[in-house]
Amino acid sequence: MRNVRIDLEYDGRNYCGWQWQPNLPTIEGAVKQAAETMLQHSITLYSCGRTDAGVHAEQHVAHFHTEVRLPAHVVFRALNSLLPPDIAVHRVLDMPLDWSARHDALEREYRYRFYRSQTPSVFWRGRSLWIERQLDVDAMREAAGRLVGKHDFSAFRSLHCDAESPVRRVLEIAFEENPPLIDMRVRGHAFLRHQVRTFAGTLLFVGLGKWPPSKVEDILASKDRAQAGPTLEPHGLTLAAVRYEGDEERFAAQEWLLRE
Amino acid sequence: MRNVRIDLEYDGRNYCGWQWQPNLPTIEGAVKQAAETMLQHSITLYSCGRTDAGVHAEQHVAHFHTEVRLPAHVVFRALNSLLPPDIAVHRVLDMPLDWSARHDALEREYRYRFYRSQTPSVFWRGRSLWIERQLDVDAMREAAGRLVGKHDFSAFRSLHCDAESPVRRVLEIAFEENPPLIDMRVRGHAFLRHQVRTFAGTLLFVGLGKWPPSKVEDILASKDRAQAGPTLEPHGLTLAAVRYEGDEERFAAQEWLLRE
Repeated sequence: MRNVRIDLEYDGRNYCGWQWQPNLPTIEGAVKQAAETMLQHSITLYSCGRTDAGVHAEQHVAHFHTEVRLPAHVVFRALNSLLPPDIAVHRVLDMPLDWSARHDALEREYRYRFYRSQTPSVFWRGRSLWIERQLDVDAMREAAGRLVGKHDFSAFRSLHCDAESPVRRVLEIAFEENPPLIDMRVRGHAFLRHQVRTFAGTLLFVGLGKWPPSKVEDILASKDRAQAGPTLEPHGLTLAAVRYEGDEERFAAQEWLLRE
Repeated sequence: MRNVRIDLEYDGRNYCGWQWQPNLPTIEGAVKQAAETMLQHSITLYSCGRTDAGVHAEQHVAHFHTEVRLPAHVVFRALNSLLPPDIAVHRVLDMPLDWSARHDALEREYRYRFYRSQTPSVFWRGRSLWIERQLDVDAMREAAGRLVGKHDFSAFRSLHCDAESPVRRVLEIAFEENPPLIDMRVRGHAFLRHQVRTFAGTLLFVGLGKWPPSKVEDILASKDRAQAGPTLEPHGLTLAAVRYEGDEERFAAQEWLLRE
């Protein structure tokens, strides 16, 4: 038995999110179908997590079990030729049988992208949120600092979030400006449902001057979703990276494998 | 009478190029329709040039005459709300009546984008040409240097090119590497049909090691289209800029205008 890990990139625009749903286009459904066509047997696809409809990924990690002995570089090429053009496999790696994309993830990184301009962008639409007004990014940074650390994030999760505990540790929230793009990068072990998009909506209100940075502390303390800003549109959000122990060495070894 | 200049950005994927054609989606057709809806009279749209089907633009300049007295910032907003989302107006400027987007252009700049990676990109597809093999960019630079200057570019134009003279002056061909992107930037006063895409195809062959850089001189001297490399796919090409005298001052003044 093998445990085959695949790192995926996808443009989420045309999908109803990661998780398989009957009769709806999902990333999981498309990847599962491609893998089953290649392997000629059915699989269970295990994933580092779920993304909502319209959310993109630059590194979404999944794995499946198989007895089929295709080398990794053949799996890589076969999957890429079977997948639709808005989903791509970036890496294929054989992992220990007990390795889990979900449980072994050390850290997840999301990026929410704002396109700050008087003019809409034809190239960034569907991949960023267009903001016409000026943003005070320093105020957003100041407010973001108050969200970093271990907190009860009840005010920042969807009412439909099914996580047992609302407590999470946010490792970093950084704002990177490459005009006209402004990226909010959020790192943490794991996130609540809609947490990053609600961070983005709350910090956007701070950036627009509607709220002072200090308001974020009141929202956090309230534990009331109604106090926070809006859950921003999914198309601005990208799952940027999922980190695992030993990945650097694995990736270095794989460079050789894929060059064949 | 006013002479209204509009600077446009567009994603060319869904269009049969700039020039109006009956019953086909074209950029000119979409812009003309939006402008006529706004002005309530028919117009002639004058353009800095044509782009082929699938080619993109970050700055395509056009102008039209009208008696309608809408201020520039209203024209700007009206056109952007009437245009489809893959075409955007970035600037609206009142120009002297005798100003021409075509004849007054000092310089045009095109960019051909390669996506150099073992893995396809879901985000850059349709906007770059995916190259799986390694490219020797220094060899491409060396070969490109031999195309700069005033030459008879008969070997690098489409057999359907209707320009009277095959002589053009290429001001610069630069390669910029932001892995996995490799951009070929070409500046000149004007270009022959398919000239930039044939440059890209010829220099690609040099980059892949099929041809030595010196071969470019033989191709140039042959004046024979059959000697040059392929005309690369249009979706890698973007009209990046068109430059006119006095634009810096005009744009600075417009910043104020658009802020209302």
